[in-house]
Amino acid sequence: MEAREVLTKFKQNEITLEEAEHYFRKQPFEEMDYAKLDSHREIRSGFPEVIFCSGKADVHFTQIFKKLYEENGEVFGTRASRHQYELVKELFPQTEYDEISHIIKIEKEKKEHVGKIAVCTAGTADIPVAEEAAQTAEYFGSEVERIYDVGVSGIHRLFSRLDVIQEANCVIAVAGMEGALASVLGGLVDKPVIAVPTSVGYGASMHGLSALLTMINSCANGIAVVNIDNGYGAGYIATQINRLGFREK
Amino acid sequence: MEAREVLTKFKQNEITLEEAEHYFRKQPFEEMDYAKLDSHREIRSGFPEVIFCSGKADVHFTQIFKKLYEENGEVFGTRASRHQYELVKELFPQTEYDEISHIIKIEKEKKEHVGKIAVCTAGTADIPVAEEAAQTAEYFGSEVERIYDVGVSGIHRLFSRLDVIQEANCVIAVAGMEGALASVLGGLVDKPVIAVPTSVGYGASMHGLSALLTMINSCANGIAVVNIDNGYGAGYIATQINRLGFREK
Amino acid sequence: MEAREVLTKFKQNEITLEEAEHYFRKQPFEEMDYAKLDSHREIRSGFPEVIFCSGKADVHFTQIFKKLYEENGEVFGTRASRHQYELVKELFPQTEYDEISHIIKIEKEKKEHVGKIAVCTAGTADIPVAEEAAQTAEYFGSEVERIYDVGVSGIHRLFSRLDVIQEANCVIAVAGMEGALASVLGGLVDKPVIAVPTSVGYGASMHGLSALLTMINSCANGIAVVNIDNGYGAGYIATQINRLGFREK
Amino acid sequence: MEAREVLTKFKQNEITLEEAEHYFRKQPFEEMDYAKLDSHREIRSGFPEVIFCSGKADVHFTQIFKKLYEENGEVFGTRASRHQYELVKELFPQTEYDEISHIIKIEKEKKEHVGKIAVCTAGTADIPVAEEAAQTAEYFGSEVERIYDVGVSGIHRLFSRLDVIQEANCVIAVAGMEGALASVLGGLVDKPVIAVPTSVGYGASMHGLSALLTMINSCANGIAVVNIDNGYGAGYIATQINRLGFREK
Amino acid sequence: MEAREVLTKFKQNEITLEEAEHYFRKQPFEEMDYAKLDSHREIRSGFPEVIFCSGKADVHFTQIFKKLYEENGEVFGTRASRHQYELVKELFPQTEYDEISHIIKIEKEKKEHVGKIAVCTAGTADIPVAEEAAQTAEYFGSEVERIYDVGVSGIHRLFSRLDVIQEANCVIAVAGMEGALASVLGGLVDKPVIAVPTSVGYGASMHGLSALLTMINSCANGIAVVNIDNGYGAGYIATQINRLGFREK
Amino acid sequence: MEAREVLTKFKQNEITLEEAEHYFRKQPFEEMDYAKLDSHREIRSGFPEVIFCSGKADVHFTQIFKKLYEENGEVFGTRASRHQYELVKELFPQTEYDEISHIIKIEKEKKEHVGKIAVCTAGTADIPVAEEAAQTAEYFGSEVERIYDVGVSGIHRLFSRLDVIQEANCVIAVAGMEGALASVLGGLVDKPVIAVPTSVGYGASMHGLSALLTMINSCANGIAVVNIDNGYGAGYIATQINRLGFREK
Amino acid sequence: MEAREVLTKFKQNEITLEEAEHYFRKQPFEEMDYAKLDSHREIRSGFPEVIFCSGKADVHFTQIFKKLYEENGEVFGTRASRHQYELVKELFPQTEYDEISHIIKIEKEKKEHVGKIAVCTAGTADIPVAEEAAQTAEYFGSEVERIYDVGVSGIHRLFSRLDVIQEANCVIAVAGMEGALASVLGGLVDKPVIAVPTSVGYGASMHGLSALLTMINSCANGIAVVNIDNGYGAGYIATQINRLGFREK
Amino acid sequence: MEAREVLTKFKQNEITLEEAEHYFRKQPFEEMDYAKLDSHREIRSGFPEVIFCSGKADVHFTQIFKKLYEENGEVFGTRASRHQYELVKELFPQTEYDEISHIIKIEKEKKEHVGKIAVCTAGTADIPVAEEAAQTAEYFGSEVERIYDVGVSGIHRLFSRLDVIQEANCVIAVAGMEGALASVLGGLVDKPVIAVPTSVGYGASMHGLSALLTMINSCANGIAVVNIDNGYGAGYIATQINRLGFREK
Repeated sequence: MEAREVLTKFKQNEITLEEAEHYFRKQPFEEMDYAKLDSHREIRSGFPEVIFCSGKADVHFTQIFKKLYEENGEVFGTRASRHQYELVKELFPQTEYDEISHIIKIEKEKKEHVGKIAVCTAGTADIPVAEEAAQTAEYFGSEVERIYDVGVSGIHRLFSRLDVIQEANCVIAVAGMEGALASVLGGLVDKPVIAVPTSVGYGASMHGLSALLTMINSCANGIAVVNIDNGYGAGYIATQINRLGFREK
Repeated sequence: MEAREVLTKFKQNEITLEEAEHYFRKQPFEEMDYAKLDSHREIRSGFPEVIFCSGKADVHFTQIFKKLYEENGEVFGTRASRHQYELVKELFPQTEYDEISHIIKIEKEKKEHVGKIAVCTAGTADIPVAEEAAQTAEYFGSEVERIYDVGVSGIHRLFSRLDVIQEANCVIAVAGMEGALASVLGGLVDKPVIAVPTSVGYGASMHGLSALLTMINSCANGIAVVNIDNGYGAGYIATQINRLGFREK
Repeated sequence: MEAREVLTKFKQNEITLEEAEHYFRKQPFEEMDYAKLDSHREIRSGFPEVIFCSGKADVHFTQIFKKLYEENGEVFGTRASRHQYELVKELFPQTEYDEISHIIKIEKEKKEHVGKIAVCTAGTADIPVAEEAAQTAEYFGSEVERIYDVGVSGIHRLFSRLDVIQEANCVIAVAGMEGALASVLGGLVDKPVIAVPTSVGYGASMHGLSALLTMINSCANGIAVVNIDNGYGAGYIATQINRLGFREK
Repeated sequence: MEAREVLTKFKQNEITLEEAEHYFRKQPFEEMDYAKLDSHREIRSGFPEVIFCSGKADVHFTQIFKKLYEENGEVFGTRASRHQYELVKELFPQTEYDEISHIIKIEKEKKEHVGKIAVCTAGTADIPVAEEAAQTAEYFGSEVERIYDVGVSGIHRLFSRLDVIQEANCVIAVAGMEGALASVLGGLVDKPVIAVPTSVGYGASMHGLSALLTMINSCANGIAVVNIDNGYGAGYIATQINRLGFREK
Repeated sequence: MEAREVLTKFKQNEITLEEAEHYFRKQPFEEMDYAKLDSHREIRSGFPEVIFCSGKADVHFTQIFKKLYEENGEVFGTRASRHQYELVKELFPQTEYDEISHIIKIEKEKKEHVGKIAVCTAGTADIPVAEEAAQTAEYFGSEVERIYDVGVSGIHRLFSRLDVIQEANCVIAVAGMEGALASVLGGLVDKPVIAVPTSVGYGASMHGLSALLTMINSCANGIAVVNIDNGYGAGYIATQINRLGFREK
Repeated sequence: MEAREVLTKFKQNEITLEEAEHYFRKQPFEEMDYAKLDSHREIRSGFPEVIFCSGKADVHFTQIFKKLYEENGEVFGTRASRHQYELVKELFPQTEYDEISHIIKIEKEKKEHVGKIAVCTAGTADIPVAEEAAQTAEYFGSEVERIYDVGVSGIHRLFSRLDVIQEANCVIAVAGMEGALASVLGGLVDKPVIAVPTSVGYGASMHGLSALLTMINSCANGIAVVNIDNGYGAGYIATQINRLGFREK
Repeated sequence: MEAREVLTKFKQNEITLEEAEHYFRKQPFEEMDYAKLDSHREIRSGFPEVIFCSGKADVHFTQIFKKLYEENGEVFGTRASRHQYELVKELFPQTEYDEISHIIKIEKEKKEHVGKIAVCTAGTADIPVAEEAAQTAEYFGSEVERIYDVGVSGIHRLFSRLDVIQEANCVIAVAGMEGALASVLGGLVDKPVIAVPTSVGYGASMHGLSALLTMINSCANGIAVVNIDNGYGAGYIATQINRLGFREK
Repeated sequence: MEAREVLTKFKQNEITLEEAEHYFRKQPFEEMDYAKLDSHREIRSGFPEVIFCSGKADVHFTQIFKKLYEENGEVFGTRASRHQYELVKELFPQTEYDEISHIIKIEKEKKEHVGKIAVCTAGTADIPVAEEAAQTAEYFGSEVERIYDVGVSGIHRLFSRLDVIQEANCVIAVAGMEGALASVLGGLVDKPVIAVPTSVGYGASMHGLSALLTMINSCANGIAVVNIDNGYGAGYIATQINRLGFREK
């Protein structure tokens, strides 16, 4: 019984009133009026807070970017516009921006990348989402292997890279249109497949809903699905899985 | 100008009033009060009329069955119940009924089967729809090859039969759940693939809508789709295609 | 048993190690880093690879266009923008661009067109999709007959051209709004009808979903459906069918 | 100013307090605790109240049936079960029940039927809904012509009866599956077409939603749509239209 | 038997070959290559052909406008842009264009307007669709009464104009958001109500689908529905009904 | 700072270790292995826990019923079957069961009912849901006025009871089909309207989704919506509102 | 019997003809040709009419703004554009415009704010909708407490402010994406929770439909839902509830 | 280059023709005519094949059950009926059947369970799906902790068990209705959360689609989703993750 221990220690003066009080307080966060930065997040989840840049007002974006950089010595944002890049580049010239994945970041140098995540796409149009996944996983410390344009309409392309894919702790399958890639991968590997439907397609693809349904209904095992175009979410959970796989060695 | 020819021939007494009148009359059909049997259908389309048995009242079903048998010397019905089979078995003991495909028929003997149609299923639960397709195609004179349980979750099963599939004039891909089989087949054969989504599945399969969307959005070429569970429609259009392919020899 | 033959021939030195190895290798493709051009595609499917231009980065589009032209002596792209046309026109002045169908191409001269495909539209607004279908079929070597603006609201217009339609090996029915044209055609011809729903319409047409549902649920036989606005897909499968019909003569 | 007139007449004793009060009272109805029978309905709309039988408790159904019969000397109910028929047959042996349309009624004798409404169906399975429409229109005093099984898959059947259809003041088009009949009729007649989608079909027909969408998106003019399987609603509005057309003679 | 009469008359030289041939010919139309103007339309339906301007190429729009004006001495187009207006204004300075309804027209002078159609809207944002309906009905010769902004959130506004509404042969109910106006009107008048859902609204209104569903499911009688924002369709069928009502007098 | 107070009191021996520990423990509940009865619920929300009976196993249902009765001296369950009633009637003969609302309960005698909630239905078929709402509100201590069968197709029925409705602190509007009743009520009262869509209807009512959309999109103010057929939820929140309104007096 | 009283008093000359007539007249409104301003609205509902600015023509917007200001001495509009602000600022320089909530207003000074409404958001992107709710409630006289960025992905942020939330008479929960905030709040407070889904999100959020469904299906009690992004509607009904709660003191 | 090695060894007679041929053959499976048992599956994926019992014909079910038991010495089936249990109990009296999860199995004794998976449910009605997940994971060798009835409407119940949940390598969140549990868990643990929407609910829950959408749109990180009611799929992928986490120790 943890609470009992704290109380006992407090009574026995092993810890101060403030320490005891702190124990029982709710977990802290940084109040920014319009936002509450989750500063205990890395302790709780093992991942620092990142910025979902899209739709943030300029002043808010800049302040949050600055605050997170000051706290962590690095900062990572998804769905950033070129305009947002230009805003922070003035403050932090070392900021990097990738036009394809729309990721903005300042990253610590010589970060170690461990384990292995395989990021596969069905077509070239799925690459922006795949890069969001891949770079997210890399930022969080995963080793990433990219295998692009291996969709089921020419399935021999997938088989030619199967050995690389099968070595990964986790496979991310990124596909739009009918999204069949996830099912085929699920049948060929023995590790978890995180499926990312993309909004690539037209007509009855309904901006990715069709691919999402395909992946959710997959007849193969070992597949779980994240939101349409949610490369970040896939990179995050794949890193969680990869860390489990890595620590084993 | 055809009309002109008929008129001229009529004036020159080369054809009678009745013949001319018949020419201009709308195409005939058999009026049955509650139904209009399309007796010119075989002439127009090359396929005799068949019965969609489901939902027909007993007396209507029996009369239509009888009428079509009398006209054509054979009769073919889809989605028949065992009860309907028992109704007509008393009249025509030679009637055959297949519990799996729910097809009821009296078929002429020694029918020739030409060309080749490959009917593939993703799983065993898709077999009833596949059999409706296969037996429809056979009734209309096509040779049919069955390749069942070759879904993408164990894709090596499909590859082991690929040579047989590639020989067909037309491939029918029957799949429920996520329906990815059609896309994979589309990438592997050079003949038309008719995709049949099935209502096999649960949850977000939405009774086959998910598989339908997958097939409609396929990234592979040479695929066209019929309604959910519409084995008959697939067997019909595949026969049309197979006839084109067969006559060439 | 093919594998056995190769092995036996290899052991008997009838084929070299490289030839045997090549036999067992996966089918090749051209690795372009961001894409894998399917160079064995024409061998496998009888159709050369084409470019889906929409959404491709300028540099990728130009490189793929160039590569395909070098390999095949001709190249064909769908959903191209005028901007993309201007990019390649500088490199290849002979490039043609059609503002209506958004097709870009360099085509070999004096290509033979065989068989017959009838492309029908319900209205004039469906013509862009119909032209994508027609020009695709022509590029792949099919003879095409265009019958436009024959929708069911003035059905006598359709009947006036019925003889032409009935001569084709395959009919493409292009229609938006309620999409009833496909059903009417299915009842009037004895060849396969490939139905293409278009996004023409407003309100409850839901960008073509309504027409797609109409076509999928058609009460007529011999109809199969491709994605909304997918003229290319219709032209492709119609060519597959037309080739079957043509070779017969 | 009507209110002023009533007030003035009342002050001048031309009408009594009760008459004036009655004028200003809300329109009356019969309070039955669980229901409020709209007894002024015939005055307001020209149609007596009818019973939507489905889902009514036995005791409620019987009381309402009795009450309406007492008020009007006739009574009409839709979607009645055989069980409900047996309930009231004991009370009123003259009650009629139609197994196909599920209409229950006691009807005054020698009712005159005027004007002309044409009720068309695409198939035989649509007949129950068509009969609900036809018998509703007849109960309300319309002459009805039935033209069944004239769907677009064999459109010559429709043309053979076109003259009869074109004579009507209003056409009711009843169709399930893809529901294309309404569009074809809309292009061929110059009177209003009331389209009734039915739940006949399977798979992507989605219990009639697909036919509903087809009809709502019709490219033909002069079409308006009622709910799926709503034969009663179609017979009602068609009678309103037919009455307008009839009084002209 | 009409065909027989023509044939007999022809044989007896009462009519010429051309006349007989003409009788049996399909109904004519004006072939414009990209369009088939339905010149027999007025004979068949009592309504001249009109132009759905949206999406037409400039050259096509101008040609069709000109052709229809030449044939009928007046012309009417819906969903026209200001740009299209400027195109034809140069050719026909008498052209009128209404910024609210987006109707473009040249109309014969002193056209008689007969009968009565009431056009009601729930809010002011529904007025563009209502004006499309009203001006269509007026162009086709109907007298129109406008009753705007009488939605159910302040239902006393509707009651204040009820007498006017109740005099019409047909009521058009135009409403977006939840579209409840049609149901309320259906309960208050004894003439047909044509309900037009509009795309006015936000969120779960889903661009008018919600209002469409409300109207289709109406618990009131005498209501039929046209497509979202389809003022033209409502004005057309209301005119058909109004003509029936008018001729009676 | 509450935590500080507890800690201080504990150190000063004003409270015991157990009392302090209890303070910091999470809020308690009754662990039943397969369920966690929320025994602090009444303290937290002012409402005792109730049973959603549908789908509960017999043994679980009986145990939970018994446990709640023992704790509170009364018990209330929704969506109970007759079978479930028979199970507990043996244990507690005083149990009451209402066949219409499917509510099962043992209720304390002489419960006071305060304030006023008006429960309105559009039709008689909506009464089961309305009764679930009304009896829930009564069980939780509200005075309830029932106004049934006042739907918009005969809106004078609603006006005749408007004075009663306008006196309530909260109005519950229960309606299926097109669900327009909520909008009309919202325009007529100055208190919150809780709208309950019901699954009453057919065809495009889609089991209540259409009514739900109508209510969510209402053009009237002061309306908020609960789930389809969720009479309990409406009665609950209406009671919360009614308590606010009552305490004021 | 009220009507009787009026009539009697009128006959006895206790009231004039005009007074009696006025009593029986429908409730008045201000006829503006294109709109009917509901000038009795404040009497009927306790809330003055406000302007939904979006989509209003400039001239209409300005006139209505002016008219309402003249009548009430203050005016309030939602979803106003900067352009609309500039239009009225010339006429009324005291007009205020909030770029975030898109609210435009002239408000009386020293308005009293009573009771307490807590407005909570899940994220910062939900703030515009929350501000529409908050400022609406304030305009109508409610005291508002803002608690922003307390979504369930870091639930400790919510708990830190729970005491403030629990003091309110009504809680407004504003959330996009998966919208889980409403359920969590419903379990933690004993007052009504008005849930506002927002269109914040991407992919399968379907512009807020997903959040709407989450909130409608909430397993917690005491929750009712308004339309997506309908901050105004939430502020309105919350004020109705808050007034009930306030008057109690 | 593996193929080269095999060829070389074969030529040098180190391996036989049959061995070489076997190497190049496609991966094997057990042909059962109506099914193709994937006997290499355990090698490929680390999981033996299991039976999806629902919908299997009696004879097929029994044969497959027998075949798998013979091959593996144990067998596991999901969605089995009591009837299917009785079929195999005669053959294998040691068969176990769980009425709640509908799992049928013969399991090897003393199986080791390693690592830790936490299976949480929102309510008691979600337990059948949770048990399918838990027992699947246990069959595949995982240690499972069950935490049931901890939904967000009484969130303190979840907090009381948080320590147990946080120890797991993978958390399975099973929830119907609005499915908010997954988001809350995602914010509280640092391991992957596999979310399973269930069909528990009514009305707008749409048989689990609403919960699925909630989970897919979750604002929390580290969540991926499987199909509605797919406990098996969740147990499978959780085991894959758990194995990664376990091997690390």
